[in-house]
Amino acid sequence: MNKTLVRIVIGSKSDLEQCLPIQTQLQQFGIASDFFISSAHRNPEKTITLAKEAEQLGIQVIIACAGMAAHLPGIIAANTTLPVIGVPLSNSALNGEDALFSIVQMPTGVPVATVAINGIKNAAILAAEIIALNNEEVKQKLKQFREELAQN
Amino acid sequence: MNKTLVRIVIGSKSDLEQCLPIQTQLQQFGIASDFFISSAHRNPEKTITLAKEAEQLGIQVIIACAGMAAHLPGIIAANTTLPVIGVPLSNSALNGEDALFSIVQMPTGVPVATVAINGIKNAAILAAEIIALNNEEVKQKLKQFREELAQN
Amino acid sequence: MNKTLVRIVIGSKSDLEQCLPIQTQLQQFGIASDFFISSAHRNPEKTITLAKEAEQLGIQVIIACAGMAAHLPGIIAANTTLPVIGVPLSNSALNGEDALFSIVQMPTGVPVATVAINGIKNAAILAAEIIALNNEEVKQKLKQFREELAQN
Amino acid sequence: MNKTLVRIVIGSKSDLEQCLPIQTQLQQFGIASDFFISSAHRNPEKTITLAKEAEQLGIQVIIACAGMAAHLPGIIAANTTLPVIGVPLSNSALNGEDALFSIVQMPTGVPVATVAINGIKNAAILAAEIIALNNEEVKQKLKQFREELAQN
Amino acid sequence: MNKTLVRIVIGSKSDLEQCLPIQTQLQQFGIASDFFISSAHRNPEKTITLAKEAEQLGIQVIIACAGMAAHLPGIIAANTTLPVIGVPLSNSALNGEDALFSIVQMPTGVPVATVAINGIKNAAILAAEIIALNNEEVKQKLKQFREELAQN
Amino acid sequence: MNKTLVRIVIGSKSDLEQCLPIQTQLQQFGIASDFFISSAHRNPEKTITLAKEAEQLGIQVIIACAGMAAHLPGIIAANTTLPVIGVPLSNSALNGEDALFSIVQMPTGVPVATVAINGIKNAAILAAEIIALNNEEVKQKLKQFREELAQN
Amino acid sequence: MNKTLVRIVIGSKSDLEQCLPIQTQLQQFGIASDFFISSAHRNPEKTITLAKEAEQLGIQVIIACAGMAAHLPGIIAANTTLPVIGVPLSNSALNGEDALFSIVQMPTGVPVATVAINGIKNAAILAAEIIALNNEEVKQKLKQFREELAQN
Amino acid sequence: MNKTLVRIVIGSKSDLEQCLPIQTQLQQFGIASDFFISSAHRNPEKTITLAKEAEQLGIQVIIACAGMAAHLPGIIAANTTLPVIGVPLSNSALNGEDALFSIVQMPTGVPVATVAINGIKNAAILAAEIIALNNEEVKQKLKQFREELAQN
Repeated sequence: MNKTLVRIVIGSKSDLEQCLPIQTQLQQFGIASDFFISSAHRNPEKTITLAKEAEQLGIQVIIACAGMAAHLPGIIAANTTLPVIGVPLSNSALNGEDALFSIVQMPTGVPVATVAINGIKNAAILAAEIIALNNEEVKQKLKQFREELAQN
Repeated sequence: MNKTLVRIVIGSKSDLEQCLPIQTQLQQFGIASDFFISSAHRNPEKTITLAKEAEQLGIQVIIACAGMAAHLPGIIAANTTLPVIGVPLSNSALNGEDALFSIVQMPTGVPVATVAINGIKNAAILAAEIIALNNEEVKQKLKQFREELAQN
Repeated sequence: MNKTLVRIVIGSKSDLEQCLPIQTQLQQFGIASDFFISSAHRNPEKTITLAKEAEQLGIQVIIACAGMAAHLPGIIAANTTLPVIGVPLSNSALNGEDALFSIVQMPTGVPVATVAINGIKNAAILAAEIIALNNEEVKQKLKQFREELAQN
Repeated sequence: MNKTLVRIVIGSKSDLEQCLPIQTQLQQFGIASDFFISSAHRNPEKTITLAKEAEQLGIQVIIACAGMAAHLPGIIAANTTLPVIGVPLSNSALNGEDALFSIVQMPTGVPVATVAINGIKNAAILAAEIIALNNEEVKQKLKQFREELAQN
Repeated sequence: MNKTLVRIVIGSKSDLEQCLPIQTQLQQFGIASDFFISSAHRNPEKTITLAKEAEQLGIQVIIACAGMAAHLPGIIAANTTLPVIGVPLSNSALNGEDALFSIVQMPTGVPVATVAINGIKNAAILAAEIIALNNEEVKQKLKQFREELAQN
Repeated sequence: MNKTLVRIVIGSKSDLEQCLPIQTQLQQFGIASDFFISSAHRNPEKTITLAKEAEQLGIQVIIACAGMAAHLPGIIAANTTLPVIGVPLSNSALNGEDALFSIVQMPTGVPVATVAINGIKNAAILAAEIIALNNEEVKQKLKQFREELAQN
Repeated sequence: MNKTLVRIVIGSKSDLEQCLPIQTQLQQFGIASDFFISSAHRNPEKTITLAKEAEQLGIQVIIACAGMAAHLPGIIAANTTLPVIGVPLSNSALNGEDALFSIVQMPTGVPVATVAINGIKNAAILAAEIIALNNEEVKQKLKQFREELAQN
Repeated sequence: MNKTLVRIVIGSKSDLEQCLPIQTQLQQFGIASDFFISSAHRNPEKTITLAKEAEQLGIQVIIACAGMAAHLPGIIAANTTLPVIGVPLSNSALNGEDALFSIVQMPTGVPVATVAINGIKNAAILAAEIIALNNEEVKQKLKQFREELAQN
């Protein structure tokens, strides 16, 4: 079995159904991932642990999804030097513009690689692009994926 | 000398000059405060310690000021049950709308009492209103302040 | 029976169902509240009376909920020195961005502690955080609530 | 001397210079006005008195100018059945979009006739259009003004 | 029968159902109105005629409703010195923010008295406030309406 | 001398300096243009005449520039079947977002070809692209312009 | 049969149903068009070919429709000197405001003629206005269309 | 000398001064980069070549910076499977909100890792985080950088 290379963290159980396809998409690239529900605000210590332990577990990329005042990706990024991908979710009255600003506008020193509002699949693809830099198998699957994309 | 009742935390040295008047305003209500610079992203552990230790130090209200993806007030609120007042700062291309959304749109369970963009003085006044609930001296100074406000 | 410590005011009968859970949430913290419908514009005198009389009735926090040009929290704050919590409601074409700006952008001197758009429960929790400063029973219930929150 | 037909109210001394041209513009239509500084939040009672007494003083139109959470026009409208013209001012980080929403998005029952952000002169012209309905002299000056406008 | 004092113009047949209550509300104040569908863009000449002829027909106020790039109120205002009330409609992808900006941001010289997005009833009430300045019967009905409003 | 193929109309003398480069840019493509200042609101009849007469004068494209509630391009488009290019100007508190919405969000039937906020030069280039469809000289100059663009 | 004068390109199969009426509307003006699905991102080479070959195929106008980060019209415009009409689609959490900004805010040198969000029919009408400059039959049909528009 | 691992592309010479610090920041991590000015619209072929050739040149990450309708990062991402970092620049009337939406809202299949508006340094740090996954020297410098960050 493949080593787990991506960690997915979402902030709320209510976002589970929307975010599970990240794991499916990663599997299509042959990338194993683990998946946690941990709010930056309701579970701050668990969240920090998930971030801090990731590198020594062999995780290469962390994907964090959150809506509203979406602090989850930023707090994870503050506790690791692994690349962190943030997905803003549109589960609020402001249609995700709040989550987008809360994720992308990170201050100097601690970036979050932000994808589109509800950009679930693109988070997985971006993770694959990063992992592919040193993983020929993922690189091949990624190139094949892009070629198939062009057919449709 | 008065016991320190308010803790002020700002996310960046560059916001110091803008935020110091919070302390001055609190002094006019006879409220002592301490003041720290600690970024939610660059100093996550210090930030959490500042939040966690506050209650047993006798702090009653924490005021946190930040711009851009302003996670500071939310992260502090996640690590205390004291009331936390958040001040969005307009130090970015988005004129503080990013900071406002990042502070006010907190998820259920962990509120931040948000004031206006750059609402430095109002953060101090709101802290005084909270403290005045059980502090007759502050209550009198607050009422006098509001009366003088009406004169101008 | 507990003394009434929180006053809830909403601007329109049509917001009743959305806002009643504030009272339920407060009860979970053992906090009694009264509840009024009074528009800042259609019932200006009633609104001002509700604000002015609150302190001597022993009220410690006022929660005001309104949509559109949401003046209710600000007008109440203008007529009391108690802390006032404002909840913007998304009942308009602008999805509550109008109510958010109308509540949070208060001028210097008269703050409103603003929570998220439709942040009904967080208004109650913030009120509990304030009351808990001098109420050990509420403090314990609040800490327990936050611990349970972390479990879910 | 002409009877005072328009009452101008601004929320803050700092807006005085920007708003005085309302009075000048009204004079060009031969309309006398009085002018008050009274914040909806810092001087709620004075503001209500200015609104309530206006009709019996012979005032026909009230013009109210405010920035940020601009409640002044709405509070005046809540205390009179005279037509109230609101002018949003751009004196905040949000460039007057907050004031615009706070003034124009009034709930059913209590309208405010809103003009452009910083639309100082247009407030005076709109007042003149209303007064001209029953004032032939103003009507003539208004028509002449519009003709001259077309020349420039 | 009462003389027609208000002219209502809407830009599109598809807005008819939403806008007819303006006429009903005016009738409750005893104000007769006529009602036209005429787009500023598809029927420019008819629109201009409706504006130009209004004053000599005895019309005192024109109410114009439009969505998207809502030019109708502004074009009518450009062709009359009667007060023109504009109602932005939320019939587009931008939820009426486009119509609001297109109506309220009129240049110096030609104001439009703008009410809330979809503020159908408030347009009628504002018209009544203007007409009531010289119509005692409307004035009484308006005051009674506001008193009843306060009961609900 | 070349026949005049483009008509430029701006809404206000104050936009003159910003908009004159349209004419210069057109000259670089060998296209002659005339230039008028005519507000849709202050000079409605002149504006309509400028639109209506254009086709029989041999004009092929009309460029209209305006800020705030920018009705000028739409009103011109309503009075001609020539292609109309609209340029939103950022001369207001809303930084041209108001003008952009007022120009681009035209209702079905009467389009305006909208370019970027302050997109002065692009309006001229778009006009040249349209004229070049049947003008080999302009086509050559346009292609050369684009090649030079690629060098810089 | 008529020569194909307009090329329509959409970025995604999922926008097909919404965009096909462009072709129908063009047919009502007697204008033949071809229609392609080609994403600027998933099919960059096909997209560039569609743009580059258009002129020598006799195409006069290209219409491109896209949502989200809508690069399609701009990329086509970068590869032709034909006039390109862009239609922003509202198929995202941001309701098309993202697509509007991505299409209209083109840099100096390469304009896109932008119509309203979801302005499907207006794209066809604008294309007809351009083609009519040198096509008397289209010109007549366009004028007739505008006259019928005025009847409805 | 170090192998070039990062390619930086900016869309306009006018953004040069703002963007050069990316290269400086990368140097502090010991990462060599090349730097190109190539507009997605004015130099489409050069831009595509820069993207396509990058992988075989040994480039691991491409950073693209652009303002307004910022298509540059997306077009580069469409022509490589390397991770692409996009930096929205605030050089327009819309203060970079246009560039942010144009970069982050990429459609499914082709992500761009977006950082804050004007997030020049964070683009370099994010690139370093990606490269550090397989470069122990960069990893050490990155960790040291973050530790120093915490000191300030």
